[in-house]
Amino acid sequence: MTRPAEQLETITRGSVDLIERKELIQLLEQGKPLRVKVGFDPTAPDLHLGHAVLFTKMRQLQNLGHQVIFLIGDFTATIGDPSGKTTTRPQIDSPEIQANAATYTAQVFKILDRERTELRRNSEWMNSMSAAELIKLAQHYTVARMLERRDFNSRYLQQQPISIHEFLYPLVQGYDSVMLKCDIELGGTDQLFNLTVGRVMQKQFGQNPQCVLTTPLLLGLRGEDKMSKSAGNYIGLAEPAETIYAKIMSVSDERMWHYYELLSLIDNTQLDKLRKDVANGANPRDAKDALAFELAGRLHDEKKAHAAREKFVATFRRREFPADPEKIIITAQPNEKINLSMILKQANLVASYSEYRRMMAQNGIRVNGSKIAEDIVCRHGEEYLIQIGKRRFAKIILS
Amino acid sequence: MTRPAEQLETITRGSVDLIERKELIQLLEQGKPLRVKVGFDPTAPDLHLGHAVLFTKMRQLQNLGHQVIFLIGDFTATIGDPSGKTTTRPQIDSPEIQANAATYTAQVFKILDRERTELRRNSEWMNSMSAAELIKLAQHYTVARMLERRDFNSRYLQQQPISIHEFLYPLVQGYDSVMLKCDIELGGTDQLFNLTVGRVMQKQFGQNPQCVLTTPLLLGLRGEDKMSKSAGNYIGLAEPAETIYAKIMSVSDERMWHYYELLSLIDNTQLDKLRKDVANGANPRDAKDALAFELAGRLHDEKKAHAAREKFVATFRRREFPADPEKIIITAQPNEKINLSMILKQANLVASYSEYRRMMAQNGIRVNGSKIAEDIVCRHGEEYLIQIGKRRFAKIILS
Repeated sequence: MTRPAEQLETITRGSVDLIERKELIQLLEQGKPLRVKVGFDPTAPDLHLGHAVLFTKMRQLQNLGHQVIFLIGDFTATIGDPSGKTTTRPQIDSPEIQANAATYTAQVFKILDRERTELRRNSEWMNSMSAAELIKLAQHYTVARMLERRDFNSRYLQQQPISIHEFLYPLVQGYDSVMLKCDIELGGTDQLFNLTVGRVMQKQFGQNPQCVLTTPLLLGLRGEDKMSKSAGNYIGLAEPAETIYAKIMSVSDERMWHYYELLSLIDNTQLDKLRKDVANGANPRDAKDALAFELAGRLHDEKKAHAAREKFVATFRRREFPADPEKIIITAQPNEKINLSMILKQANLVASYSEYRRMMAQNGIRVNGSKIAEDIVCRHGEEYLIQIGKRRFAKIILS
Repeated sequence: MTRPAEQLETITRGSVDLIERKELIQLLEQGKPLRVKVGFDPTAPDLHLGHAVLFTKMRQLQNLGHQVIFLIGDFTATIGDPSGKTTTRPQIDSPEIQANAATYTAQVFKILDRERTELRRNSEWMNSMSAAELIKLAQHYTVARMLERRDFNSRYLQQQPISIHEFLYPLVQGYDSVMLKCDIELGGTDQLFNLTVGRVMQKQFGQNPQCVLTTPLLLGLRGEDKMSKSAGNYIGLAEPAETIYAKIMSVSDERMWHYYELLSLIDNTQLDKLRKDVANGANPRDAKDALAFELAGRLHDEKKAHAAREKFVATFRRREFPADPEKIIITAQPNEKINLSMILKQANLVASYSEYRRMMAQNGIRVNGSKIAEDIVCRHGEEYLIQIGKRRFAKIILS
């Protein structure tokens, strides 16, 4: 196995919290494969690169020889965890959860090594748990401590309802770590609290407490918001290779390094060299191409990544309007008129109105092939081919 | 059946809270036997008259023709309810709970009509409940609402730990009402919050919410504290008839009316007449004798009540020191000296030091037959026969 110090560098790259570093070093020094738990609530089958940050960290651990447990919280999903959300999540019926779980795993194995993944569901032990056993679990944690969780605390202070069953979710999640005898649990930084509950539960059951490592939120393609489907600034894991490639090529140089750190499997030495080369004058476009190629290849295959690259280069060189651009459909009343700037801002094709004005001033916005010098009014029933800068293309349809 | 208005008078006599009076009147007007739930946590097998307040209310309802359900919370007892207590109650193992339950019922049927009592245990439905079902129950109640319960609130504010499992107790108790399809639930006033949870649960399960009626705490034989074993101001339900009789005879006239209201089965018309007679000059001792006789008779039988009365009268007339006085055993070091006043105060034979001084000034305290004029020092290994006033006798043993 790789030396502990080197492993630690890879494992902690881009991470936010590590509890406790000392314990993790001790575990790595034992030279045995660690049991790495990552829990997923099968409620969001539309996965994007934001989710891939965690999957990538799991893959790094697999590549280092550790045992990854992909835990589907099919039981806990029936409870609903409101982490980071301010409203009580509606319950999902079991058939839907099972279908989501299937979609989830289909997508996640684009990134994970299936051979080195233990796929588990917490219904395995939770379905047979009695009410009495759950009550005994609930003895091990206090109300005050639970109310320290940031979202619970703010909801409590703002007098928004928290159902008592929501307090049971972190306990069940913690108990999962007991059942799986985990050495380390990974999760998004918004899960930090829940992950530490596992430590408390394991201690109660006489086990060594797991280490906890969290990953940050991935920023979207443009702007300072996190990547999310609703913000439209995302790359879906199920998107075609050429879309993935082109979208990565559209991000800023700064955003590129953020993605490298959190999404690339190249090691720290290679990454450091790349940064230095670019700092010393190498074309950042080449670094971006390497990342776009890596991601398109990992999410599809090398052949498709090559094709995506070729298509992009051709489009870029000829500044051709793509045959199949992103379609943005706007619902409008028959006599309604909508400013283009508003549509582009809404669709996240520009990050802000000021970007829109700047791009326009630089002759960077084309509508149906012509540069525009002032905002235009879009009408119901019409279509507009939009090009912003060199790489952003879209077809806007008002229907 | 008795007219609704008359029933309402009997049912509410001496009660504290009634939710909702209007609903109860409607129920009584239907003229059907009500399903009356009273839950008991089988953790206090040493019952005293304080507990009998509730039993008496149950008996009154039985006498009015209603169906009383005596629910033993053998499942909830494994959770532990900290109502009115400031520390987390330790769990009790099931065999102990079962034994307590047996002792409980043996004592309670001195007051209840066994033929008209449905004896149930909530383990009947709770033992087979799954963790998933409990979680679904926990959806129906919010953390904020639970923290409104007085003892939870004060513990939370004082940063004393509340285990999450304590939040599950009121929910299970409320679910009991659903399973039993109750029309009304009775409980001590400290249980008000828990009883109202039953209303919420019943509504969730499409039932009419139960009415809630609470009974007050019974004051002790002397002083202003509630009756309790630890305060030594109590009459145990298992005490001999003559002790019960004599202890009732020792209370003040004012306390006598308090006991009448909460413990006697005589109806309101009879009670009003008794009050008027005493107000018009009848000897309160005769009213006290009637109450002492009623309680000794109900807790034992009429024959024993007669014997108790005879013995008391003989003792009282001759001011004889009883053959078998209350024994108070004080643990003392061999060379330790303890003031009599302190022992009497501790043992609740006097309500306060000032009562001690007043009684002594009136030549009302005898030690081994002699009046004392100043506090005396008691010594290890010795015994003291104490008489305070006309009716309080005790043997103090320092060992």
